[in-house]
Amino acid sequence: MTCDVTLAMVEEAKALLAAELPPTPTFFSPSLSRLAGVPVYVKYEIFQPIRAFKVRGALAHLLHRARQGIRDRAVVAASAGNHGLAVAYAARRLGLRAAIYVPKDANAAKVAAIRWEGAEVVATGSDFQEALQAALAEHPQAAFVHPFDDPWVIAGQGTLALEALSQASFDTVFLAVGGGGLLGGAGLAFKEHEPQMRVVGVEMRGADSLARSLAAGRLVALERVSTIADGLAPRSVSERTLTLARRYMDELVLLDDADLWRAMRLCLSEERVLTEPSGAASLAGLLARPDLVGRAALVVLSGGNATPQQLSTLLSLRL
Amino acid sequence: MTCDVTLAMVEEAKALLAAELPPTPTFFSPSLSRLAGVPVYVKYEIFQPIRAFKVRGALAHLLHRARQGIRDRAVVAASAGNHGLAVAYAARRLGLRAAIYVPKDANAAKVAAIRWEGAEVVATGSDFQEALQAALAEHPQAAFVHPFDDPWVIAGQGTLALEALSQASFDTVFLAVGGGGLLGGAGLAFKEHEPQMRVVGVEMRGADSLARSLAAGRLVALERVSTIADGLAPRSVSERTLTLARRYMDELVLLDDADLWRAMRLCLSEERVLTEPSGAASLAGLLARPDLVGRAALVVLSGGNATPQQLSTLLSLRL
Repeated sequence: MTCDVTLAMVEEAKALLAAELPPTPTFFSPSLSRLAGVPVYVKYEIFQPIRAFKVRGALAHLLHRARQGIRDRAVVAASAGNHGLAVAYAARRLGLRAAIYVPKDANAAKVAAIRWEGAEVVATGSDFQEALQAALAEHPQAAFVHPFDDPWVIAGQGTLALEALSQASFDTVFLAVGGGGLLGGAGLAFKEHEPQMRVVGVEMRGADSLARSLAAGRLVALERVSTIADGLAPRSVSERTLTLARRYMDELVLLDDADLWRAMRLCLSEERVLTEPSGAASLAGLLARPDLVGRAALVVLSGGNATPQQLSTLLSLRL
Repeated sequence: MTCDVTLAMVEEAKALLAAELPPTPTFFSPSLSRLAGVPVYVKYEIFQPIRAFKVRGALAHLLHRARQGIRDRAVVAASAGNHGLAVAYAARRLGLRAAIYVPKDANAAKVAAIRWEGAEVVATGSDFQEALQAALAEHPQAAFVHPFDDPWVIAGQGTLALEALSQASFDTVFLAVGGGGLLGGAGLAFKEHEPQMRVVGVEMRGADSLARSLAAGRLVALERVSTIADGLAPRSVSERTLTLARRYMDELVLLDDADLWRAMRLCLSEERVLTEPSGAASLAGLLARPDLVGRAALVVLSGGNATPQQLSTLLSLRL
């Protein structure tokens, strides 16, 4: 499959986002370096305005449409997670109405956060797929922002790589895989800039659509997924993100929920920051496979929207 | 009393530190702004290499001596806290031996961190004052770095203000007061740059040497101090820092330990970062007196070296 995402698009996305999103910090971590046995840099996407990297893709998509002269009045997304929050935030910044469709059993705290961004929340259907179908049926005219299967969303996530390359010196990067948008966009930008960069994907064993698709040689959708990392739990990557992973990913590490809890705990005790489960997956991948690192590693704390329940659980664990 | 710290020294300290300490991030906080009812920016000194602002002053002091052509071989400090860690770190960076004197009952975790920086730790005396006397008696030739009563340490802490002014737009700043070095240096730099800036000191009611000294019109040393914020617990400010406070501080807010616990808890739930008790004092001051804020406030999360026990306590609290 040819690919409709390019380095030039990632660079254009970077220019579009420049006025909206200041760079997130990247720091060397003495304590994680000690633990991993290799030099480790940490990129703190928890300092994005919605506390997750997803705002890059949502804003890049909508800013690109505006740049093309497309005048939307409303924006629609289907997600009870950070993507829903990202689209709500981006719509508010651009003065657009947003309708965010979520399943009926969506987490109340996350729904409240989306509402706080000024979006209309529509709770419908028993899962993400049904919410998505309702969104498309009820808003045929609105701009629809897919959480990962979209060239400009992927290009937006890729801006993380350009930023990191200007902030620190490393040759191995660990990127969490849900739908594969971050891996696709950032993997592309890393590899096209630095062909020697080692790009390591990190996927949950309970939601391993990418691993199964690579093994089967075709896109594999899972019957069901099971992981605490709701940010990494789509039932399937897409043809587009699978193509990008094939082209730009060197290794894929599979993790269990216990690996995420341990990494979240270390983030708190060593880095003094709280992440949500998916937000610690990159670090967990490094800790599982430090042998994959060449000279130095970059890990991305990709999201900080832990629920109060997750924080309580985290601190009651004996790890 | 005339003052031997100037804006020119703070600017020179900034130039000296430029190659050693990258700027720490400053971000607008939507959730703290909502809670306080005024726009709030947060400066994250927990991303300093020792996880506390103190490294600014210790490095500025030693770099200034080196610039003057003074060739030290050893450095001495008396502190079991962030200042001891800062001097150990600065000495290692400059290739000097460091001896850090601590009281016999010093916190084991903090002592281990100082040792990890390569310093010799000498446990002697029943309190900070006795450790200090032993340090001076046993190392008459070594460079001694005072935690706050030193012009270049104060100028180093002042660099925080220059950095913050280049990162965000605010007219009110809350600065925690222990010995008064940060308040003195940053207060000076803020006011000399922006005479309209409102500088608010934040002191613990159980260690209120500055408040009592201001009331008495002379330096008052406390018989004993009582606060969970060991970073804010010297028995006395100094003539030098008292003079700076008189000149540059507009208001002084007094806090109880419960105010710090509440602010630490909010840092974790709203900002997703862990601070030590003294590190949350600036935020606690804002939350106690948001009425002091003009257009927008800056709070400084000044240190992140919470002990495991403090983290446990924090999470068991019902606030």
